[in-house]
Amino acid sequence: MATETHFQKELEELKQNLLKMAAMVEEALRNSVQSLVKRDSDLAQKAFGFEDRINKMEITIDEMCLKLLALRQPMAADLRFITSAMKITTDLERMGDQAVNISERAISLNQEPQIKPYIDIPRMTEIVQSMVKDVLDAFVNRDPKLARSVCARDDMVDGLNDQVVRELLTYMMSDPKTITRAVHLMIVARCLERIADHATNIAEDVIFMVDALVIKHHADAETKDA
Amino acid sequence: MATETHFQKELEELKQNLLKMAAMVEEALRNSVQSLVKRDSDLAQKAFGFEDRINKMEITIDEMCLKLLALRQPMAADLRFITSAMKITTDLERMGDQAVNISERAISLNQEPQIKPYIDIPRMTEIVQSMVKDVLDAFVNRDPKLARSVCARDDMVDGLNDQVVRELLTYMMSDPKTITRAVHLMIVARCLERIADHATNIAEDVIFMVDALVIKHHADAETKDA
Repeated sequence: MATETHFQKELEELKQNLLKMAAMVEEALRNSVQSLVKRDSDLAQKAFGFEDRINKMEITIDEMCLKLLALRQPMAADLRFITSAMKITTDLERMGDQAVNISERAISLNQEPQIKPYIDIPRMTEIVQSMVKDVLDAFVNRDPKLARSVCARDDMVDGLNDQVVRELLTYMMSDPKTITRAVHLMIVARCLERIADHATNIAEDVIFMVDALVIKHHADAETKDA
Repeated sequence: MATETHFQKELEELKQNLLKMAAMVEEALRNSVQSLVKRDSDLAQKAFGFEDRINKMEITIDEMCLKLLALRQPMAADLRFITSAMKITTDLERMGDQAVNISERAISLNQEPQIKPYIDIPRMTEIVQSMVKDVLDAFVNRDPKLARSVCARDDMVDGLNDQVVRELLTYMMSDPKTITRAVHLMIVARCLERIADHATNIAEDVIFMVDALVIKHHADAETKDA
């Protein structure tokens, strides 16, 4: 019983670390996009500062999961939860990489005149940030409904990305001097879309994780081999 | 002892499935790029056909890993090998998604006159395919040297991508009618670069996996808590 409680504590700590890592990603993303919007390259530098912390957190969480697997030998729901956590750290780390990419583009863009005020990119960013936050909440609370709402938001992000690309193509065609900057901006939008994809991948894992257990439970109830 | 042999057999089967999945990704990628180069949209359709098989293989491998973790309760090297396998299936599946993206762009591009003969993109593709193949070999044979050679090739892919982007920017600036097609081609190059990034991520995991064990072994030898 004491061991069980200890295991629950360790799982709780794992969840807290995942939420912390997601918060770092959100913050890195916020700084990178704000750097672009406010034309302040210091904010991009701030985003770079998160990279190392995010990478270290990935290793910490991975090690934690390996220890839990080795020492606690969890079954069924807990086993799947821990292996999913290991996949999620990878996604979060790659989201961090995308924030770094955005910061690099922001620094280049901030050295030249702005093509146009940025409207859709901050809007995409807000949605993407909400996806990152919510998908981690969905995971730690095993909430497939919230996970489904994250998947739904991915379509909004894709729609905004298409809009950004279309608009930038118009700029490029009417004034070739804008081409290099427009390509940078397209890549920023694509980075945001990639982060949304990572969040959607996690959301699908959450849905699969919960549904698989549901299916397995049904099968077990019918004493079939699931 | 009989159980140990059975476990070895299961690990072998896991390795074979990972190699099979990587081969599917390579084949999907080959078809998608050939579709572009040969201007044959049927090949793009062929690439789409792999998506479902790749997704199913991901689930199969994941389930296999979960079973091994639950029933065999592996320790140390085997534990890390299995959890890494679960991360690798995710990477392979996303590489498959990139092949789908390339196919979609190929279909659009094949409907319009070709801007220029494709030279760097097939070259990038060859390197990327070799990375996918070799990184899986490095993983199943726990070969950090081969893994390091995969990381080195990533720089070549990045270099070719920069070259493609630069050249396409020139086309776009001198003839705005090429802009839409050039953007499609930039995205194809970027998809290839993303696949190379996934392969590099796996390579880093392989190096980390082997080195961590080396470090751990040293620490164990000194009877420290690793």
